Amino acid sequence: MADQTYGISEVVGTSPDSVHQAIRNGISKASQTVRNLDWFEVTTIRGQLSDGEVAHFQVQMKVGFRIE
Amino acid sequence: MADQTYGISEVVGTSPDSVHQAIRNGISKASQTVRNLDWFEVTTIRGQLSDGEVAHFQVQMKVGFRIE
Amino acid sequence: MADQTYGISEVVGTSPDSVHQAIRNGISKASQTVRNLDWFEVTTIRGQLSDGEVAHFQVQMKVGFRIE
Amino acid sequence: MADQTYGISEVVGTSPDSVHQAIRNGISKASQTVRNLDWFEVTTIRGQLSDGEVAHFQVQMKVGFRIE
Amino acid sequence: MADQTYGISEVVGTSPDSVHQAIRNGISKASQTVRNLDWFEVTTIRGQLSDGEVAHFQVQMKVGFRIE
Amino acid sequence: MADQTYGISEVVGTSPDSVHQAIRNGISKASQTVRNLDWFEVTTIRGQLSDGEVAHFQVQMKVGFRIE
Amino acid sequence: MADQTYGISEVVGTSPDSVHQAIRNGISKASQTVRNLDWFEVTTIRGQLSDGEVAHFQVQMKVGFRIE
Amino acid sequence: MADQTYGISEVVGTSPDSVHQAIRNGISKASQTVRNLDWFEVTTIRGQLSDGEVAHFQVQMKVGFRIE
Amino acid sequence: MADQTYGISEVVGTSPDSVHQAIRNGISKASQTVRNLDWFEVTTIRGQLSDGEVAHFQVQMKVGFRIE
Amino acid sequence: MADQTYGISEVVGTSPDSVHQAIRNGISKASQTVRNLDWFEVTTIRGQLSDGEVAHFQVQMKVGFRIE
Amino acid sequence: MADQTYGISEVVGTSPDSVHQAIRNGISKASQTVRNLDWFEVTTIRGQLSDGEVAHFQVQMKVGFRIE
Amino acid sequence: MADQTYGISEVVGTSPDSVHQAIRNGISKASQTVRNLDWFEVTTIRGQLSDGEVAHFQVQMKVGFRIE
Repeated sequence: MADQTYGISEVVGTSPDSVHQAIRNGISKASQTVRNLDWFEVTTIRGQLSDGEVAHFQVQMKVGFRIE
Repeated sequence: MADQTYGISEVVGTSPDSVHQAIRNGISKASQTVRNLDWFEVTTIRGQLSDGEVAHFQVQMKVGFRIE
Repeated sequence: MADQTYGISEVVGTSPDSVHQAIRNGISKASQTVRNLDWFEVTTIRGQLSDGEVAHFQVQMKVGFRIE
Repeated sequence: MADQTYGISEVVGTSPDSVHQAIRNGISKASQTVRNLDWFEVTTIRGQLSDGEVAHFQVQMKVGFRIE
Repeated sequence: MADQTYGISEVVGTSPDSVHQAIRNGISKASQTVRNLDWFEVTTIRGQLSDGEVAHFQVQMKVGFRIE
Repeated sequence: MADQTYGISEVVGTSPDSVHQAIRNGISKASQTVRNLDWFEVTTIRGQLSDGEVAHFQVQMKVGFRIE
Repeated sequence: MADQTYGISEVVGTSPDSVHQAIRNGISKASQTVRNLDWFEVTTIRGQLSDGEVAHFQVQMKVGFRIE
Repeated sequence: MADQTYGISEVVGTSPDSVHQAIRNGISKASQTVRNLDWFEVTTIRGQLSDGEVAHFQVQMKVGFRIE
Repeated sequence: MADQTYGISEVVGTSPDSVHQAIRNGISKASQTVRNLDWFEVTTIRGQLSDGEVAHFQVQMKVGFRIE
Repeated sequence: MADQTYGISEVVGTSPDSVHQAIRNGISKASQTVRNLDWFEVTTIRGQLSDGEVAHFQVQMKVGFRIE
Repeated sequence: MADQTYGISEVVGTSPDSVHQAIRNGISKASQTVRNLDWFEVTTIRGQLSDGEVAHFQVQMKVGFRIE
Repeated sequence: MADQTYGISEVVGTSPDSVHQAIRNGISKASQTVRNLDWFEVTTIRGQLSDGEVAHFQVQMKVGFRIE
């Protein structure tokens, strides 16, 4: 059996609600174009503010996938 | 039009409930004294423990604002 | 009064639901074997993906406790 | 309205003249294959030396773009 | 003579032209409200892209000043 | 009871004698203008040299304070 | 002559034998889909354990390539 | 099924021969006292020199294990 | 002779007096439960403030020990 | 052919004009005493301020050279 | 007047007594072979342990000097 | 007995074969001009690629030596 290789893409998911929903939204979008998603790792948590409140949580993450 | 300059303040928001609520609470407090808040970036997520449970999530973040 | 010393353990808590629940689960497990837990600090937020969705949030954290 | 997701590509732009021209050259090249470029962030500034002088500035940067 | 103490502010200077002009613009703005500026240190170089070109260089920096 | 928010200031304390005295001097100066100081965290330890000896220890630190 | 631009991909190569073989395996796989590979830089060395032994070395690396 | 929690131990494995053998030696020793080892992550690669040659490779790593 | 393996514990030593005394206090406490202590490395220097003065220096450090 | 080894020196170049001129000035000075300069990598960009303006850009960099 | 260039050397000073004395000892030794020492910056604080006590504080630092 | 001081040099060793041989080659070269080499610490592992294969492993490391 050949040794497995993984590719890594970097995406930013966003959500007006929470950090974990921003992660879910980003993964959901990535899964539309990349197959065999395997893990993610958050690199930064940022967000945009509007009228003194959080408008969007923006979670930057590396997403690993198996290369067939 | 003059080039925009931004200032950055650093705050720690806390919440007994979640990371995202700790962020919201810190932003809410910051907005009482700083105008034109524009973005935030999380630098550390810590918390205090009491009786073997999370008492408070403490999220340290940099908050950017437009200088008029 | 003697000067307080703290020990630090590192654990990874997991949850299918959210970052904050993964933290709570890890703390809850750590409290079963370590007494006098005092604080935690998140070092990485990762997760496993399955069928293009988040299967588990995995939050790695350092947990500080008072040494008696 | 759906939550916006961003992709991130990493490129190295080069220029014999300056750091900012190396950034411009890298962005210009990236824009030929990626649409909706939104921001960049420099990760390293290096360069090659020849005959005791700077031959090329090489600026590595992450480039964010909106995923439609 | 008392020991000198310094304060540190963090600002983001911007410029459509270059990294060094973004630094100058941020310092110039900071000098309108803080006296005795002494040094700066760049923490991140980012920028906004528009139509596949650099719209603004954004240089985040810590600015040190003598406290009288 | 409202959730506590903390602000963070950054200062550089100096002393010709030691690292810990530089910290004390910086905190002492900070306490003249900021109330409710709660903790500090050292970010860098530098110093100036003169005639081949340490002229001043310079300790940069973040200082956290409770916002009322 | 136009200024050279480089793209950067991130991959994880694996091997049951050694760190350097994991690097070689990852590069070998990457070369099947990306041309003009020029350099790599290791970002993390991890591995999976099974029955108290190393099952696979996993080397994450950035791979630079010339964009024609 | 309860959510899995992992503990993390830190060890330094050594070998006169190679980086990968140092990792294997450290894991082998760790497996004598900790059960259910699951993964490792290298944090530093150092070594001792003697007579102008490498006497020992010393690989510091975090070792993750399932807590039952 | 078998290759030496080292374990690493993390502790926080405290002292109202100085950074080096906080290190000594933490090491002294660690030596009560761990044998064959070999080296330490400081990871963070923090402290608690009370009435505008340093109440305790808190030095977090990794402590290496030989595993027999 | 023997395997090439490189040495690395660290210098700070300065210029009142720009970041790239500070890099050039530092390289120019380094080339007076070190031969076979091959590449540089910027580690920090700082500067001194005077009368609310940038007096000097100070760019710290590692400079690699071939050892013959 | 030519633009000033600085060189940077890295040394480890040691002392059985304190962090600040280890810094002084390292600077004192460096001043015997390098002229025009200007500043230092601490990069790591380590130490050797013997019989459960600190045998030596070891402070690694970068030392900047003016190149004439 | 005087307190020991150590100097630190930075070199890049290379090898077409492995990471550990690149380290050995760099140390071997360094030992020709610096006496009393004591330890090394790897800072980056890079390499050059040619025809889709690893041409050279390049290991950058700090090398510590006793100053007599």
